[in-house]
Amino acid sequence: MSSQRTISFPTQELIDAVGPIPENLKAVLWDLENEPRTPLEDIEIAVLPYMASPQRLKNIRQAPNLKIVQTQNTGYDGMVDLIGDRADINTAAGVHAAATAEMAIGLAIASLRGYPQAVRDQQSGHWNPQQWPGLADRTVALVGVGGIGEEIRKRLEPFEVNLLRFGSTARTDDHGQVFATADLAARAAEIEVLILIVPLNESTHHLVDAELLAQLPDGATVVNVARGPVVQTEAIVAEVASGRLNMASDVFDPEPLPADHPLWQHPNALVIPHNGGNTKAFFPRMVKLLKKQVQSWAAGHDGENLVHRS
Amino acid sequence: MSSQRTISFPTQELIDAVGPIPENLKAVLWDLENEPRTPLEDIEIAVLPYMASPQRLKNIRQAPNLKIVQTQNTGYDGMVDLIGDRADINTAAGVHAAATAEMAIGLAIASLRGYPQAVRDQQSGHWNPQQWPGLADRTVALVGVGGIGEEIRKRLEPFEVNLLRFGSTARTDDHGQVFATADLAARAAEIEVLILIVPLNESTHHLVDAELLAQLPDGATVVNVARGPVVQTEAIVAEVASGRLNMASDVFDPEPLPADHPLWQHPNALVIPHNGGNTKAFFPRMVKLLKKQVQSWAAGHDGENLVHRS
Repeated sequence: MSSQRTISFPTQELIDAVGPIPENLKAVLWDLENEPRTPLEDIEIAVLPYMASPQRLKNIRQAPNLKIVQTQNTGYDGMVDLIGDRADINTAAGVHAAATAEMAIGLAIASLRGYPQAVRDQQSGHWNPQQWPGLADRTVALVGVGGIGEEIRKRLEPFEVNLLRFGSTARTDDHGQVFATADLAARAAEIEVLILIVPLNESTHHLVDAELLAQLPDGATVVNVARGPVVQTEAIVAEVASGRLNMASDVFDPEPLPADHPLWQHPNALVIPHNGGNTKAFFPRMVKLLKKQVQSWAAGHDGENLVHRS
Repeated sequence: MSSQRTISFPTQELIDAVGPIPENLKAVLWDLENEPRTPLEDIEIAVLPYMASPQRLKNIRQAPNLKIVQTQNTGYDGMVDLIGDRADINTAAGVHAAATAEMAIGLAIASLRGYPQAVRDQQSGHWNPQQWPGLADRTVALVGVGGIGEEIRKRLEPFEVNLLRFGSTARTDDHGQVFATADLAARAAEIEVLILIVPLNESTHHLVDAELLAQLPDGATVVNVARGPVVQTEAIVAEVASGRLNMASDVFDPEPLPADHPLWQHPNALVIPHNGGNTKAFFPRMVKLLKKQVQSWAAGHDGENLVHRS
């Protein structure tokens, strides 16, 4: 029996970038599609591909002796069902925080300053100055005060907005009051910009439904950088189609959004194809995390961002 | 001779919103197009229309006894030539700062996260996820450290960028080092995002020319929220047309951009029709400034933002 534990990486690029790993670890390439060169029985630690399809991720079950899984995503909805009690799950929380937070701010500004309209006007060479609401002086609800929620809060702070934060329970933290998400409906009439960055779970599934949307004021904008099913799709489609509300979203339900989906059609919906965490900042930050993780795992310690223990 | 001084406002809406003014001032409506009800000789203080054409602004010369001009814009390029030594000029510096600063951040994110491409993909229902550079970890040059420049700096701070600031002279301020704009070319090779917020004057006219643009790295983005002529139009058109650089701009030379101008055509140019300061935040902030100004003027004092004395 070897004294080395085998760790699989989904790309050679990642193996090369992480560089030399501790002697008691052995790196192999496994992309969850093609057979690795090492028997699947040897793999104890697996780094998953970024943004892989559920179908591809299912192949993780082919490794019978898996002890540790490292994702390259922040959300891990569905992963526990897939891995069960067979392995620990570590996420890439933090790696995507900056990119996702800037996406939230960018989507809010884009919608509130009419960038989609400008792009369409540009196609016909139409100089069409007009007053758009803008972000300054708006009442913004930030729903989600976890890692990325905090990054969004920090970035919103200098924009002169009236910020209301919502978390799973009402509390006070270093940055002031946090309302309970259960009280979102009670405050909805004030909310001009609703930014969603909650994990997807039973309590957040369809958190934003027809009833809540109906209570937002005319012209409000829903910014979703959480997960598609946090918003009830039919309900937002109806509000966007009527022109009453605006949407700027990086995530959808279903995803990918089918070519014939009604959301594509509406000028007051901005559809970004789940690019949230995927920027040039991603790879260097992921490599930095993995360099730390391999040291921990080699020493027999837990890695960072351990969200599920086998 | 009346003990009241006459102050003209360009809209009745503004007169109503400013509300009661000190007894020694008398408000009249003058939009610089139609004759005021009061003889033009009476007008000593004039609030100019927002974003008026140079042609319309020229009518300010019809008021022979003007002592004070209040603009609704931040920039006052051309105003001194128009007013000469006949009156003091006060600007609306500060009123537009938040809206213009958020425009700068929004344009940078929109370009660096591919929003224009997303809007075009949306028209054909094309789910097209891809990696865009993103703002985090980029080297950003902020050229201009005045009022709006400072508002942009504040908003950039939490975005995890490598920020280089440039002002008219090299110095150190509360936020660190400011390089001289004269040294922009020497640092250009590092600059991935170039944000322009300098006043337009002789030394900033065509500050960004073909030579400077050629030194920016491939894929760099030029964000102009200053004035169109700060960038040499032919030079940026050439770089954008070749696909080497990106542009996201709120201001142009000429402005409005004619329908047949080449800039409209390029997917890596985002054209916003000078909406910089024009948001819902504008009117309440303008009213707040005017309420203070009328108190000062009624008391015989200078108003805020006095940029030119007669």
